[in-house]
Amino acid sequence: MFDDLKKESLDYHEFPTPGKIATHVTKPCTTQQELSMAYTPGVAEPVRAIEKNPDDAFRFTSKGNLVAVITDGTAVLGLGNVGALAGKPVMEGKAVLFKRFADVDVYDIEVEAEKTEDFINTVARIASGFGGINLEDIAAPRCFEIEQALIEKLDIPVFHDDQHGTAIIICAGLLNALEIKGKALKDARIVCLGAGAAGIASMRLLKALGARADNIFMVDRKGILSTSRSNLNRYKQEFAVDTERKTLADAMRGADVFIGVSGPGLVTEAMLASMADKPIVFALSNPDPEISPVLAHKVRDDIIMATGRSDYPNQVNNVLGFPFIFRGALDVRARAINDAMQIAAVEGLRALTHEPVPAEILEAYRKDHMEFGPDYIIPKPFDPRLMDFVPPAVAQAAIDSGVARCGFPKHYKPAPHL
Amino acid sequence: MFDDLKKESLDYHEFPTPGKIATHVTKPCTTQQELSMAYTPGVAEPVRAIEKNPDDAFRFTSKGNLVAVITDGTAVLGLGNVGALAGKPVMEGKAVLFKRFADVDVYDIEVEAEKTEDFINTVARIASGFGGINLEDIAAPRCFEIEQALIEKLDIPVFHDDQHGTAIIICAGLLNALEIKGKALKDARIVCLGAGAAGIASMRLLKALGARADNIFMVDRKGILSTSRSNLNRYKQEFAVDTERKTLADAMRGADVFIGVSGPGLVTEAMLASMADKPIVFALSNPDPEISPVLAHKVRDDIIMATGRSDYPNQVNNVLGFPFIFRGALDVRARAINDAMQIAAVEGLRALTHEPVPAEILEAYRKDHMEFGPDYIIPKPFDPRLMDFVPPAVAQAAIDSGVARCGFPKHYKPAPHL
Repeated sequence: MFDDLKKESLDYHEFPTPGKIATHVTKPCTTQQELSMAYTPGVAEPVRAIEKNPDDAFRFTSKGNLVAVITDGTAVLGLGNVGALAGKPVMEGKAVLFKRFADVDVYDIEVEAEKTEDFINTVARIASGFGGINLEDIAAPRCFEIEQALIEKLDIPVFHDDQHGTAIIICAGLLNALEIKGKALKDARIVCLGAGAAGIASMRLLKALGARADNIFMVDRKGILSTSRSNLNRYKQEFAVDTERKTLADAMRGADVFIGVSGPGLVTEAMLASMADKPIVFALSNPDPEISPVLAHKVRDDIIMATGRSDYPNQVNNVLGFPFIFRGALDVRARAINDAMQIAAVEGLRALTHEPVPAEILEAYRKDHMEFGPDYIIPKPFDPRLMDFVPPAVAQAAIDSGVARCGFPKHYKPAPHL
Repeated sequence: MFDDLKKESLDYHEFPTPGKIATHVTKPCTTQQELSMAYTPGVAEPVRAIEKNPDDAFRFTSKGNLVAVITDGTAVLGLGNVGALAGKPVMEGKAVLFKRFADVDVYDIEVEAEKTEDFINTVARIASGFGGINLEDIAAPRCFEIEQALIEKLDIPVFHDDQHGTAIIICAGLLNALEIKGKALKDARIVCLGAGAAGIASMRLLKALGARADNIFMVDRKGILSTSRSNLNRYKQEFAVDTERKTLADAMRGADVFIGVSGPGLVTEAMLASMADKPIVFALSNPDPEISPVLAHKVRDDIIMATGRSDYPNQVNNVLGFPFIFRGALDVRARAINDAMQIAAVEGLRALTHEPVPAEILEAYRKDHMEFGPDYIIPKPFDPRLMDFVPPAVAQAAIDSGVARCGFPKHYKPAPHL
């Protein structure tokens, strides 16, 4: 990062007031009468109602629009284990995005807990006041155990964004790219470099969408996850294949798809050249991708490429997902964000990319990048139509799959593509 | 409560949006450039700064203006153990008051934890992101152990408002009342009915202010706390006196001061008649006091009376305390709210009551109740001068007693009475 952005970012966070979020009173509270409703004695009524029926918390408190963004600080950005408190600017950043993009209220919570069990119990004990839990920046493989335990304990959505948020955007972009290249997911040979939270969740979701397990090579620092490897944790074992191939280079030969959620520069020109015809390359390491788009396009002119950066086409950015997915889940008071809802989000994102773009949105971006095709396989983060396509699709899937507590709110518009 | 207030309160909480608080983005976030400061990649800078120096969280995040209002739901209002979630409307109400009166941001946190140890550990693990902890509606004697353990574990203020908030307002009003009646605290014979959180904290603070231990009769459901009683918990033992007297009626004979934090109608006309000359009666049971002010004034014309109600003079209302006490503590990034700071709050409230009231404030209240005297021993909740008198006095005491992390902020005005 350039020094002037560093300085500018510190100033942005410090002035005129520290941080990026505050609270805001939504009801009038200036007279004694209003005070006596907001607080004693009037507040006793909603208390009694919720004591009788816990779901009344959705009616009388902020619970139904409130998500806890929770970290333990073990995998913050690319900075590693910086500790819970140092993760706070990122969690507040997430709160900003939730509010800005989908009007979801967020409390950021930083949990100091070395033991996985302590983290799980802490989150479970504070969960009832929230409509959903967004886990964030928690190291793998701990993140898998934590999420699974909390999903089992709680009756609100628990969603580890580094896993599923990333997976949903990747799958939407990849399905569009395959469509453009005329390839079918079930036949595609896929390499995933990076077997952490994002890699494992993406491959799981791709399988749920129809990818074949034996078409997927998952690669970590030691090479391909194969049945001949020892000491694989149980999450990696899920992807171990029976193969003689060992290295990333081995995996890349003849592959249709490369998904990189690893580190800068790990893909060579030779690897790229060895891929199948019309390959799809998602080089998502940030800020420096596994292979630079400029170099990749020099090596082959038949690829579709995506990165994590805003200065190239096809930016895979989680902000396309989590605000809208939670918006849809909260709108029907969902008990979970299940596979069906995640797939509905994928389809919502895909459908939006196919839509012609209105002039006012084109105005905000460069025209040439917003027509469905190799350089436009995913929507742009500031596209206001995300709110039309994703939340109602997610909400509909929640209703259809039986995890919604209520139907669509009044005046809710169904997703245009459904 | 009347049925129409009940209905009105439920509507107030439900419409147009559920609950009373939301979050609010304080920094611009509409362009790609702003997004890259609020979130990746720019947000990495404050993360690195806080990793190196945890106190930088006060500079770059909302921590320094953020209080967690935390309950376990075991003693909510007068409703008892309603459970954590049912306490949420009250905690949100507290958040409203913090924001409305002193611009303090609050996250309300409802903790489900049967074991005291689990509650303590949960709060301790989520505490680092906050500038202070306000414990709320936790049953005695558990509340004492919880508060003490958290004070020892944490380097931010931990303040159980039902104890200290109440104690501070009571002491301010009582010292003013004693002044009016020409009595000295050290000679005053005091009866406290109710040996829970509020009673014990009030008597502790009165002792710190100069009341004599052997002048205090603390009375619970079984009578006076005396050395002859068995099975007193250790918090009650602190107040056990060597006496032949047994009952509340015994205690009241010749008493100068009665503080009731108990239940409706427990003080009889005869008890009131048996008190010393010029007695001071704080009948704080809500909504129905230990003895009604109308009846009390019929029995004797030499008393000063306070209640918890807004429709009589001298309302003891915690909102006079906690927003301003935390405001002062946060303003100097205090590590605690210690006795010195609590006493500074008492003196700030006392001093304000002595001030002549500006016309615009008189306008908002009935004139006859705002001149220092028997019917005006405590400020009114909506008096904007509370911000001038209490926070800077508390902040000054934090600095003087060595628990402040920094000096007064720029442009801070010292308390007028200091």
